[in-house]
Amino acid sequence: AAAPTLASLLAQLSTAELGSRELLGREVGRSRSCCCTPPRLRQIVGGVGVRVQQRRVICRVEVPSRISLTVFVNPDGHPAWLNPQRQILRQLARHLHRLQPRLLSCPHQQGVSGALDLQAAHFRQRKLMSQHVLAKLLAQMHHSAAWQAKPRLRPPILSSDLLSLAMDREEFRRQGKAMVDFIADYFASFRQRQVVPDVRPGYLRPLIPAEPPQAGEPFENVMADLERVVLSGVTNWHHPQFHAYYPTANTFPSILADMLSDAIGCIGFSWIASPACTELETVMMDWLAKALGLPDHFLFPAGGGSGGSGGGGVIQGSASEATLVIFLSARNLAIQRLQAQQPEAQQQPSLALSRLVAYASDQSHSSVERAAMLAFVQLRKLPTDGKRSLRGDTLARAVAEDRARGLEPILLITTLGTTNSCAFDNLAELGEVCQSEGLWCHVDAAYAGASLICPEYRHIANGIELADSFNFNPGKWLQITFDCSALWLKDSSKVVDTFNVDPLYLQHEFSGQVPDYRIWFVLRSYGIEGLQSYIRKHIRLAKQFEELVTADDRFEIVEEVVFGLGANAPSRELYRCIREDGRIHLIASEFEASDTFFIRFAVCSEFCEAADIRYAYDVISELANEVLSKK
Amino acid sequence: AAAPTLASLLAQLSTAELGSRELLGREVGRSRSCCCTPPRLRQIVGGVGVRVQQRRVICRVEVPSRISLTVFVNPDGHPAWLNPQRQILRQLARHLHRLQPRLLSCPHQQGVSGALDLQAAHFRQRKLMSQHVLAKLLAQMHHSAAWQAKPRLRPPILSSDLLSLAMDREEFRRQGKAMVDFIADYFASFRQRQVVPDVRPGYLRPLIPAEPPQAGEPFENVMADLERVVLSGVTNWHHPQFHAYYPTANTFPSILADMLSDAIGCIGFSWIASPACTELETVMMDWLAKALGLPDHFLFPAGGGSGGSGGGGVIQGSASEATLVIFLSARNLAIQRLQAQQPEAQQQPSLALSRLVAYASDQSHSSVERAAMLAFVQLRKLPTDGKRSLRGDTLARAVAEDRARGLEPILLITTLGTTNSCAFDNLAELGEVCQSEGLWCHVDAAYAGASLICPEYRHIANGIELADSFNFNPGKWLQITFDCSALWLKDSSKVVDTFNVDPLYLQHEFSGQVPDYRIWFVLRSYGIEGLQSYIRKHIRLAKQFEELVTADDRFEIVEEVVFGLGANAPSRELYRCIREDGRIHLIASEFEASDTFFIRFAVCSEFCEAADIRYAYDVISELANEVLSKK
Repeated sequence: AAAPTLASLLAQLSTAELGSRELLGREVGRSRSCCCTPPRLRQIVGGVGVRVQQRRVICRVEVPSRISLTVFVNPDGHPAWLNPQRQILRQLARHLHRLQPRLLSCPHQQGVSGALDLQAAHFRQRKLMSQHVLAKLLAQMHHSAAWQAKPRLRPPILSSDLLSLAMDREEFRRQGKAMVDFIADYFASFRQRQVVPDVRPGYLRPLIPAEPPQAGEPFENVMADLERVVLSGVTNWHHPQFHAYYPTANTFPSILADMLSDAIGCIGFSWIASPACTELETVMMDWLAKALGLPDHFLFPAGGGSGGSGGGGVIQGSASEATLVIFLSARNLAIQRLQAQQPEAQQQPSLALSRLVAYASDQSHSSVERAAMLAFVQLRKLPTDGKRSLRGDTLARAVAEDRARGLEPILLITTLGTTNSCAFDNLAELGEVCQSEGLWCHVDAAYAGASLICPEYRHIANGIELADSFNFNPGKWLQITFDCSALWLKDSSKVVDTFNVDPLYLQHEFSGQVPDYRIWFVLRSYGIEGLQSYIRKHIRLAKQFEELVTADDRFEIVEEVVFGLGANAPSRELYRCIREDGRIHLIASEFEASDTFFIRFAVCSEFCEAADIRYAYDVISELANEVLSKK
Repeated sequence: AAAPTLASLLAQLSTAELGSRELLGREVGRSRSCCCTPPRLRQIVGGVGVRVQQRRVICRVEVPSRISLTVFVNPDGHPAWLNPQRQILRQLARHLHRLQPRLLSCPHQQGVSGALDLQAAHFRQRKLMSQHVLAKLLAQMHHSAAWQAKPRLRPPILSSDLLSLAMDREEFRRQGKAMVDFIADYFASFRQRQVVPDVRPGYLRPLIPAEPPQAGEPFENVMADLERVVLSGVTNWHHPQFHAYYPTANTFPSILADMLSDAIGCIGFSWIASPACTELETVMMDWLAKALGLPDHFLFPAGGGSGGSGGGGVIQGSASEATLVIFLSARNLAIQRLQAQQPEAQQQPSLALSRLVAYASDQSHSSVERAAMLAFVQLRKLPTDGKRSLRGDTLARAVAEDRARGLEPILLITTLGTTNSCAFDNLAELGEVCQSEGLWCHVDAAYAGASLICPEYRHIANGIELADSFNFNPGKWLQITFDCSALWLKDSSKVVDTFNVDPLYLQHEFSGQVPDYRIWFVLRSYGIEGLQSYIRKHIRLAKQFEELVTADDRFEIVEEVVFGLGANAPSRELYRCIREDGRIHLIASEFEASDTFFIRFAVCSEFCEAADIRYAYDVISELANEVLSKK
């Protein structure tokens, strides 16, 4: 049969049998003439053959009418369609362009695919849902292809860009850059925003549809909703006037690292599953240990390597998770030991379990209690001294009592920097008791551990060489985006035996984490010096706040300000006023033992400056005046 | 004293007392004349005063020589420095520019800060470590400031951009966009890359320094290392010839969502800690449940709300984590029940614990066994039928036997889509046994659950209305970047009681996850239709592989191809050849019961097309010929 005229070809491409009308959305009427319908296209691409020519894979697409289109797949993986009878195809392309005036910039020699591609972009611009239609067309066409690619040659991609339905690479470049700008603008906007939003519980549900969308939307719609739906209801944790909880890093280098991690998107549950990721993590845990001046036995054995019974570090999601891992490991080790000692326990491991007891100070975080509960191990919370520090003799006494009661002490969780008031257990004393009593000594330094990067603060961890495991959260105070908790073990086999996996892969097995480039990016971007100066600045700011409050006899400091956490103790009424006022955000806490209620002031934001501390003090002072004048 | 000449001012800014020489790096010699030294600058900025003028906060910086510089802080938070004697400052700026020819584009009216800012960028370009120097200078200057900002007025930021040591906002815009392009280029490069890298264990350590850097580096250095250090050793999970494990999504909309989540960087452990994040998650879990057609009792109570005893969903890191949560919850509930029934158990919860037993099929994932071990609950792995499906009568028999032995059956983990071969337990039968026997029925549909978005596959979950909890990983097959595992509960209080936290915040407490915009972005970008067509495409490709293998009498399909997992059973020798050949990547597995070794072929990549399946078959076929010809 003779080649059809352009007019007849275009007729085939028109919407005579428009089965996909709904999919094309509202504006279909206007652009009808440039839409292909699935049944039509299936006819057009009757058969496909492939031949190999140099480094290009070429497939011939036979249309029933015997016009042959040719598909080029370039070695760079970018598909382009060309016709051997170039002239005809160019005309067809021009025809298509005439019908879609916005596509005039399409280079004609790209042929039909170029046109289709731009058509997709065009529809997106006009908020039409055409991507799915196009993708379906191409999928059908592609599915019918009888590829005969030679072995040893990478197969061609015909349409994968278009089949990546929601967003192709070029669209990602656009939207990714728009998101980068959105983020930079958000960081620039803190001072125009309230630290805590003015919304009520349940505010969000009415703002978005109750049902998931049937068809995809252009990403611009999503971006347009970010301010309205998300930022309007976000508590700005990085606002300079955010003084609640504790610092939570989200620095730019760390955000970039997460972008890379997301993109590579591999899961390191075996070495071969992602060599770079697992190996980088071991080196980074060593870097971090060295930056903090941790004892050498927490480093991986010389030359790195795959765990074994040496030391090493592993990234966990949170300090709570790390505590749970330690509890479970200490429990299983103890049961094995008891079973070896007392064969009758072999029959009843739960009998052995019932005898185990762990210790922590009464200032330890609630996650310690929860970990004990989950591990089914009794926890004794021990009283602290006047500085809320757990001392060695308190532990020694408790251990002796419990042994006398027939219990089996297995584990101590010491805290360096309590959540309540940044108090420090006496690790040197406690470590010695643990050694002589055979207890696993775990150090939870979730917040304050970061300060070890400054040599002048390493004294807080005196006795660290006696610890069996050490944990802190770079995601709190070391400029690595949450969540990131670093756990080191003196003998990693203790954990491996419990989880029955290589320690390098522990986190992936247990918490399903992806590989982490954040430590690498952050340590390189800041350098140890940069991180030191950040830690020192926060401590300086906390001291500044302490000075302001100390000089004001309406207030009292309830705890020595060692690090970024300060505390003072005005009335509950003042706290209520501060929360209602909303200019600064902080939380209250209490020491249960002494029934002391206090306002907890933490220096959190990377953008917090001396002027912000002064401002916070002024706000508190002003509100204190109001409260006192009412009395 | 008279105003100093420009020359004398510049002399003060020169490096006469260059205390920070090391910090400035190698090239300091060349650019010495434009670097300020900390001791000098401290002299220059002797005192700082602040006054308020309209909406601008202006601080006067007194230099010892009485030249007064003025610092403007614009309401948009972007600092700009100006001199009241504009003329002089402009001259100074021009002077600085003359010394740094690259800075000629600096708008003069921005004054010194503009110059300093650009200087930082300039140093970065020239790989100098000047940011820290500049930041230190400004920090010192700022620290000495006696701010007198009025209350009720947001405090000024003097230098927070520069104090964000490693990277300021403008640098982030540049580097963020470079990273977006890097990612898009990586996605375009799969076909030029091997699916599995040619590296040996330990390859990475020699590629990077053993010690963490003392000073920060320009981010370009980090970017320059990505190909050399990371991509050279990455297994490309999204390569079209990756057929190992299972699909792991990392789509563009999902990457964008993670960027946003990282940037906002808040932790939703209470409603006020981030209203938008917690509320969006509840709505999204409802969207996802509706998209999958899950029973209504898994939705949050009408109007959303804060948990209580109704249903609801929560995001977990992985299916393993979800299984552990269920184990711990079922265990604690059972112990409470036993203690209520038998007061003597009150004294010894570990006695009650020792009686508990849970069930799963012998095809269930290893994480079930680990969860049982961690929860200290006995697990009985039950045999499956000819289709590797666990049946109701098998469970009923086991429960009866165990009750007769004095045990307390508490939990069944059913699998829809086993890891080995995508087999399905008979949920309808099992659910009925669980109901009549009072067992918690948990459904682990980690991989195959995504297919429920297509109505034609919902039959695999017949009986879902009898389940107490349901879990699947959108991070596997539903275009949401790993890690993301969705867990729904019929009665969320069962978990809340165990973890003693509001279910909305469970994940944050337990696994330390940050709020999630991925479901929102992905569902909106793809629409249900887009996701359906993706699932259908993968299934079509798996069927294509099945057809190719079925038609070839050298191979045998060991399991019915229901979804994207196929299997055939050539020799171990062929498997070894495929792994060594490296053109495609897959793994082997075996059915222990029948001692069947098989090659496991999974359709994984979003970019996998019919031609890739054909190619994979051709590679396998070619290698099979080699193996067979050797015999």
